Amino acid sequence: MEKTKVGEFQFVTEPYLSDFRGRVTIPMIGNYLLQVASKHAAERGFGYSDMSEKHTAWVLSRLAIEIIEYPAVSESITLYTWVDEVGRLFTSRCFELVNSEGKTFGYARSIWAAIDVNTRRPTLLDINRIGEYISDRPCPIEKPGKIAPIENETEGSLYVVKYSDLDINGHLNSMKYIEHLLDLFDIELFKTKDIKRFEIAYQSEGKYGMELMLHKLKMDSDSYSLSICNGGKAICRASVIWS
Amino acid sequence: MEKTKVGEFQFVTEPYLSDFRGRVTIPMIGNYLLQVASKHAAERGFGYSDMSEKHTAWVLSRLAIEIIEYPAVSESITLYTWVDEVGRLFTSRCFELVNSEGKTFGYARSIWAAIDVNTRRPTLLDINRIGEYISDRPCPIEKPGKIAPIENETEGSLYVVKYSDLDINGHLNSMKYIEHLLDLFDIELFKTKDIKRFEIAYQSEGKYGMELMLHKLKMDSDSYSLSICNGGKAICRASVIWS
Repeated sequence: MEKTKVGEFQFVTEPYLSDFRGRVTIPMIGNYLLQVASKHAAERGFGYSDMSEKHTAWVLSRLAIEIIEYPAVSESITLYTWVDEVGRLFTSRCFELVNSEGKTFGYARSIWAAIDVNTRRPTLLDINRIGEYISDRPCPIEKPGKIAPIENETEGSLYVVKYSDLDINGHLNSMKYIEHLLDLFDIELFKTKDIKRFEIAYQSEGKYGMELMLHKLKMDSDSYSLSICNGGKAICRASVIWS
Repeated sequence: MEKTKVGEFQFVTEPYLSDFRGRVTIPMIGNYLLQVASKHAAERGFGYSDMSEKHTAWVLSRLAIEIIEYPAVSESITLYTWVDEVGRLFTSRCFELVNSEGKTFGYARSIWAAIDVNTRRPTLLDINRIGEYISDRPCPIEKPGKIAPIENETEGSLYVVKYSDLDINGHLNSMKYIEHLLDLFDIELFKTKDIKRFEIAYQSEGKYGMELMLHKLKMDSDSYSLSICNGGKAICRASVIWS
């Protein structure tokens, strides 16, 4: 049973999607996580199409990624994913990332809600179905937590949501929130440091043409808080720890 | 021999990278093309690492993509690629895209040069090595051609190159040129029409922090010319035909 609880998926990191350091990026890792979450759920009867039948959809609420060592490009990596907890409104899913030598190079934790696709309001989760697959496999990173608002302390920079930002639901793609936030950091930081932990809390949906303000504030030597606002209200908050 | 001339590669189109219509995008197709070009070349002794050994690298010079019908997400697609021509400075590579029912849904043509990685100047191609693999498999779309300059006739919109735009060489990623150009079109056009042909000619490399002006001009009812300029000089020109 433990075997069927934990999903195992292979990827080869793609050179054409790497950053200037020849490394996998946080949004790219995020895409892998979303892919394996989606496949793992679909194979166990609570995936995209199962949710669609009930006019519901999964919504990513929080995501925390910790990377010990970034893989190079054209490297085979293995991702493990499993459900950690399930409640009435939220379920939590963990990930372990292993390199081609079998060494764990990162972990991630995510929290998901289900919404009614018509009302866009939260709906109750199928605790029995999902609960069958709960695994106690360890995921030794801190759970995503509260991120302090910083938008009133910084000026922010404007970004208008474009065609290429939109996902299949017509909203700002979850990974595009991350991409635009990371673009707030100067290239020098990427040359000298690595992102050790990235965390994001999604609060509402970005839409086409929406004028967003991107905020970043240094909290201490290696840690930053970020947010994306629309009309003065945060649509997401994030934090980055460099090492 | 014909078998070894033509490379065949499988993909499953990824839901999390689709656009708001649930369709594969032109930059995503472009990424598939780059991936298979890279693998096909590597398997035949003229790939990234073979070029690196001689301190050279492939540079995409021109690309034309024609799509008859866009595949949906989570669909298995097959890409075929082969070398069409090779000369002293340029080689041309073709692609055929086939859907899960075995029906061809698109073709593409690309032109590549090799540069010396230190001087960034063009170098001579290994005509004998590459010439062995030339195939006369048909690719029934027009070759990429000359695109008229339009930057002096339009105002343009500013874009500054960011971290997430950079490729492994530290330059504006080939597919990001396309992404930023397509973002010039209003969402309404994507709702009612499809891109039938996209063509781009790369002229020079976008770099971090560079201030780019993005230009678009309607040429006739369904056809547009585009360009990206830096300091008044085009770094690429493109054209789009909608249907």
